[in-house]
Amino acid sequence: MATIARMSMNLITLGKRSLDEMLPACAEHGIGTVALWRNHLEETGLARTRELLEHHGLAVSSLCRGGFFPAASADERARRIDENRTAIDEIAGVGGDLLVLVCGAAEGQPLADARAQIREGIAAIAPYARERGVRLGVEPLHPMLCDARSAIATLDEAVDVVEDVGAVNVGVIVDVYHVWWDPYLARAIARAGEHILGFHVSDWITPNGDVLAQRAMMGDGCIDIAGIRGLVEAAGYAGPIEVEVINPAIAARPLPELLGTIAQRFEAV
Amino acid sequence: MATIARMSMNLITLGKRSLDEMLPACAEHGIGTVALWRNHLEETGLARTRELLEHHGLAVSSLCRGGFFPAASADERARRIDENRTAIDEIAGVGGDLLVLVCGAAEGQPLADARAQIREGIAAIAPYARERGVRLGVEPLHPMLCDARSAIATLDEAVDVVEDVGAVNVGVIVDVYHVWWDPYLARAIARAGEHILGFHVSDWITPNGDVLAQRAMMGDGCIDIAGIRGLVEAAGYAGPIEVEVINPAIAARPLPELLGTIAQRFEAV
Repeated sequence: MATIARMSMNLITLGKRSLDEMLPACAEHGIGTVALWRNHLEETGLARTRELLEHHGLAVSSLCRGGFFPAASADERARRIDENRTAIDEIAGVGGDLLVLVCGAAEGQPLADARAQIREGIAAIAPYARERGVRLGVEPLHPMLCDARSAIATLDEAVDVVEDVGAVNVGVIVDVYHVWWDPYLARAIARAGEHILGFHVSDWITPNGDVLAQRAMMGDGCIDIAGIRGLVEAAGYAGPIEVEVINPAIAARPLPELLGTIAQRFEAV
Repeated sequence: MATIARMSMNLITLGKRSLDEMLPACAEHGIGTVALWRNHLEETGLARTRELLEHHGLAVSSLCRGGFFPAASADERARRIDENRTAIDEIAGVGGDLLVLVCGAAEGQPLADARAQIREGIAAIAPYARERGVRLGVEPLHPMLCDARSAIATLDEAVDVVEDVGAVNVGVIVDVYHVWWDPYLARAIARAGEHILGFHVSDWITPNGDVLAQRAMMGDGCIDIAGIRGLVEAAGYAGPIEVEVINPAIAARPLPELLGTIAQRFEAV
């Protein structure tokens, strides 16, 4: 059983609320760690965010998100690398040390080109991140998002990227929503081993009308979360377990009820 | 370039029309091969279907579909194996020799169980099929359908199934819609080699609201169809290239226009 002490609340799960509302509520529910999105930092500012986190005794497991390296022109790719450097400054600025990378995919671009540009982009930002004590987590996304969000579609492929880049501060994120279907998941997780920098949980329900925003609450769908967690832990991962349920209908529930449900499910599932 | 002589028209592409309407139209458009669905045979009958095919000089590349092996109870699994035997009789009865298997997935069942039951189901029907001159094509479906339609989610996994079952008349179907995103596709196709029994083409557009029925016309999406075709052929496949565009909006177009577009795209893309 995972206790609430292992939980990190990815704040997208709670929808479009302010940090001023969400952070105290998390603390009141016994949550000690949160994952932020860049829009939170834009709205609240780095200094004020850091102040809120400290006031409520909250740690930061990660910042979502860097990445989106593929683009048609070299100028645009350079601009995106700069944007990733800014995100690295932001996570360091709020006392965190992990930037999640959603690697990207450029419309109309061959997958092989996107995959090469992703390697180039990560190699370009890894030294900058290392100097600031920031790790980079390559998150493979579900293959249904391969043309829209991430040309990195399996955990094995994410580990290939990590090995190709060869920087000590680059690893992978295992999100059950994206990898649960993989017939070679056990082998891939074992292979990822010490490269696993984060583990995200939500659930999958079929049919999945809006592929981006219909994630289910843990326990409402078909993913063997406990089983995958066992594999991840057998591979050596002992860090936070991040709840990331992207679903406006879930996010719209009253916050106390929502947080109560999440806590209950987190421990039960 | 693929010429129309290589095309097989999977009739689901043309929507809910009768064989009496579709088969003459295909023949008039220079199409020499079609793929049928079991509902066509139910509506038209085996004898009349065979008569229509012969009259219009049409060959049958495959029948869609057998499979759906996983189920909660042994009785239900036995019933499904019987249903597959009926489908084998049907394809043999209209002069065809290939049954496409959509392997299935039972709601609430662990993937490992579904995958074991799929192997058991195929092993149970393979001898029956062989006696009737019928090959069985395991079609991996896109991972977004892993909980709804097929626990076999990658081509490598389909080849694993073929090797595990070890029957000479069991192979795989490569459908670009389902496998295009796979980072290891080239290697998997090379490995599949002589086991490739069919090659289906359509295209993928993101976002994909209805994951079952939004297939795009070849050339309208992002799949490198020619590239994948090159891999399939390098692996030794020289059979029909089946057009299977499941999309009610496309299917609703006037038939002459639709067939003209398909023929044009087939040759161009």
